[in-house]
Amino acid sequence: MGMTLGQLAVRYGCELRGDPDSVVHGVATLASAAPGSIGFLANPVYRSQLASTQATAVILRAADAAECPVAMLVAQDPYAVYARVAAELHPLPPLRPGIHTAAVLGAATLVPSSCQIDAGAVLADGVSLGERVSIGANVVIGEGVAVGADTRICAGAVIYTGVRLGSRCIIHSGAVIGADGFGFARERDGSQLKVPQIGGVLVGDDVEIGACTTIDRGAIGDTFIADGVKLDNQIQVGHNVRIGAHTVMAGQAGVSGSTTIGARCTIGGRVAIAGHIVIADDVVIGGGTSVPGSILEPGIYAGGGTPADTLQRWRRNMVRFGQLDELARRLRAVEKRINRDS
Amino acid sequence: MGMTLGQLAVRYGCELRGDPDSVVHGVATLASAAPGSIGFLANPVYRSQLASTQATAVILRAADAAECPVAMLVAQDPYAVYARVAAELHPLPPLRPGIHTAAVLGAATLVPSSCQIDAGAVLADGVSLGERVSIGANVVIGEGVAVGADTRICAGAVIYTGVRLGSRCIIHSGAVIGADGFGFARERDGSQLKVPQIGGVLVGDDVEIGACTTIDRGAIGDTFIADGVKLDNQIQVGHNVRIGAHTVMAGQAGVSGSTTIGARCTIGGRVAIAGHIVIADDVVIGGGTSVPGSILEPGIYAGGGTPADTLQRWRRNMVRFGQLDELARRLRAVEKRINRDS
Amino acid sequence: MGMTLGQLAVRYGCELRGDPDSVVHGVATLASAAPGSIGFLANPVYRSQLASTQATAVILRAADAAECPVAMLVAQDPYAVYARVAAELHPLPPLRPGIHTAAVLGAATLVPSSCQIDAGAVLADGVSLGERVSIGANVVIGEGVAVGADTRICAGAVIYTGVRLGSRCIIHSGAVIGADGFGFARERDGSQLKVPQIGGVLVGDDVEIGACTTIDRGAIGDTFIADGVKLDNQIQVGHNVRIGAHTVMAGQAGVSGSTTIGARCTIGGRVAIAGHIVIADDVVIGGGTSVPGSILEPGIYAGGGTPADTLQRWRRNMVRFGQLDELARRLRAVEKRINRDS
Repeated sequence: MGMTLGQLAVRYGCELRGDPDSVVHGVATLASAAPGSIGFLANPVYRSQLASTQATAVILRAADAAECPVAMLVAQDPYAVYARVAAELHPLPPLRPGIHTAAVLGAATLVPSSCQIDAGAVLADGVSLGERVSIGANVVIGEGVAVGADTRICAGAVIYTGVRLGSRCIIHSGAVIGADGFGFARERDGSQLKVPQIGGVLVGDDVEIGACTTIDRGAIGDTFIADGVKLDNQIQVGHNVRIGAHTVMAGQAGVSGSTTIGARCTIGGRVAIAGHIVIADDVVIGGGTSVPGSILEPGIYAGGGTPADTLQRWRRNMVRFGQLDELARRLRAVEKRINRDS
Repeated sequence: MGMTLGQLAVRYGCELRGDPDSVVHGVATLASAAPGSIGFLANPVYRSQLASTQATAVILRAADAAECPVAMLVAQDPYAVYARVAAELHPLPPLRPGIHTAAVLGAATLVPSSCQIDAGAVLADGVSLGERVSIGANVVIGEGVAVGADTRICAGAVIYTGVRLGSRCIIHSGAVIGADGFGFARERDGSQLKVPQIGGVLVGDDVEIGACTTIDRGAIGDTFIADGVKLDNQIQVGHNVRIGAHTVMAGQAGVSGSTTIGARCTIGGRVAIAGHIVIADDVVIGGGTSVPGSILEPGIYAGGGTPADTLQRWRRNMVRFGQLDELARRLRAVEKRINRDS
Repeated sequence: MGMTLGQLAVRYGCELRGDPDSVVHGVATLASAAPGSIGFLANPVYRSQLASTQATAVILRAADAAECPVAMLVAQDPYAVYARVAAELHPLPPLRPGIHTAAVLGAATLVPSSCQIDAGAVLADGVSLGERVSIGANVVIGEGVAVGADTRICAGAVIYTGVRLGSRCIIHSGAVIGADGFGFARERDGSQLKVPQIGGVLVGDDVEIGACTTIDRGAIGDTFIADGVKLDNQIQVGHNVRIGAHTVMAGQAGVSGSTTIGARCTIGGRVAIAGHIVIADDVVIGGGTSVPGSILEPGIYAGGGTPADTLQRWRRNMVRFGQLDELARRLRAVEKRINRDS
């Protein structure tokens, strides 16, 4: 096992500076690397660790090459090359096809022999899996759910009936897809009448859904997660939300019902997005921002607990927030001065 | 299957304008409706979809009737009528009574033959269920828990020992009821001494608890969720909290320990409520508000990341927050002018 | 069963004022206490309940003794003494050693006969448990995981492969330890390339992890939770975070990747800590604060939705925030006056 630097350079289109026959067996951080490992430098925060690294080689940008004491693979996007090298050197364990005797399959389920179904998994009637699907221990999949090829559902995740998952998805443990949306009509006596949630959830291909993330089924019609969307842990997605292709959303974000988010957006952690609004394609929203209304233009927005604004204006206002008591005192002084003078 | 408009008008007390013999088979949104379906108009955001709807009929207010091109059921509260019609046309699948062979029941459990217990469910010793209770796959119910009639516990939810659930509740997947409250006493050496959490959780009738919502057991005495409370997903309820009847709370809200919330409150998403405080009945709190102290009067409060204020004052202050850098510059200009003038 | 006040006073080093032969059987709050129970007064909020308590005895500070109508145990830290007395009078039910027939153990697992493994638990190949470990129903433990002695993993929690848990830990239901960190490199076509998450999670001794809390595995190298850390419910800990010994973190807090938090910190509920920063030892951060940058000095910080500041300055600024519209109007008035005067 292991790869030579020459093989890596050819495979990933990098310029190699160093011995093409050197072998690396695994990836490591610059600080913890031992000989035989390959590190990378993408975030300038870690540049100071370059000089003393024990790595056999480092993946980095040409601009950082001068400071590198060891062999290097020079790339325009070192992080993307690192991702590919790491996947090459540290492949996932292969599937162990088969259905564990302690798994439970309902009637009329379709489970190709290339799938791995672990102990305690429960597939209700009519579940249909693509080739090489992996179902972790104690996963529960509701009636009639279809799962695309090469999708992995990790231990303990729950997929309700009425959900459809694409191919090559990863659903982490504790995720719940397809629970009822939150819909109630208040009655005159103050009690709440449940509004039936009769839609489903459509999840595209290459979607990753984090641990304990919840995606509600549609009230009418489906909640929709497009191809390539990546959701971190503990995200809440309300009923009938639509998230566009390749949008990423960091941990503990929340999206209220019936909101549409565009493609290729980057939504920071803990962002709160109101219901019934629209976010354009290619929008970046900083962590913690609340988004009470639509954002119709691409751009970078921030608001850390306050409504979304342009990043520049929000940063300035946040600095002023820290001076607010001082500003108020200065205003009082001005007022006194004017009153005294007149 | 299907109902005539005449049947629906009589059953739900609406004025029918159109052919009483027209049949509808399901509900739909105005935009997606096909002939044979019935739509509704409650949120004015969707009024523009009325003119072109393909629905056979629409449930709406009298004020919107003039613009409706198809048959209509006129109601004072179209959303509540819609909820009832949807429940009529899209009933839940009937229970399939019986105990799956892969479910595990402890000693001295009481499970009426009208109950449905799915595969992998584990009921500890002394669990007692009412009639027609549904226990989803891989649910775990702790020792001695009592569950009221017609309650549904969805796949993978966990109910600890010491919890009591009322009738007609819905507990969604991933919910955890009765884990230890967060109680520690810091020791002189900096370590934390666990304070035993010896209370339980009492949940009333008609309560709905969302996916991955957590309700901690009391430290001493019980955490209490009154009849008709509706909790969305990913809500955290601390030990010894009391939530009054028919209060609704949206996703990712949190309530710290020993706080009492009144009846019929509407708590927005991501609201953070401090511990050891009191919220009156009929309080509405806007999404994202932090509530550091008691709210003793009914009313509408907001604070989006800042402490709760009246909605009107908070909105004004939020507008000013967006002008804060500009205000600071204007103050500086005034100060310069005064100094120059004097 | 039950203890005399004399026994308790000796065992926990308190001054007893009252009859040493009085017996107490359980703990209670001052308000709900019946004869035969022992209450405590630690939080001054509850002082008014002292006069009318029906408790047989109260644990309190000397300063509160004059107002106490019943026997008392006088202590410097009544809450810590209460915690010990409660643990004494309300011990956890004893383990029931054994492996339930409906549990599933992989190859080469090491399970001492003192352990309790409940129904539906799934231990993958190579899992090794210390003495007296308790594994709840439907828990899933990944390949090769090691668990220290006397640790309790509650029903439905999921431990991925590559995790190591210390001794005397408590992992609550719904917790997920070791899911993939959130690492993606954006490609030129806008899609996201997954960065393999090949590290693990190291959890020390005496750690408590709340319900539905998620701790991601390291991208490279391990995420690290030191001895004595206590995490409440619904906390998200990103990849390669390090949390120092005896730090406590309240519900719904979040820590982004590669951040290091010191020892003995107290992090309030819903606090949001950015990635790649450092928090010193002995830092206290108020609930809801966002922490965008490192905090290098011990102290008390707050920011309720705004960036962390000293508690005093934040409180002042928050008061001013509530006056912001008024300040802006006053500034406008000053500007008008100056323009008129000149």
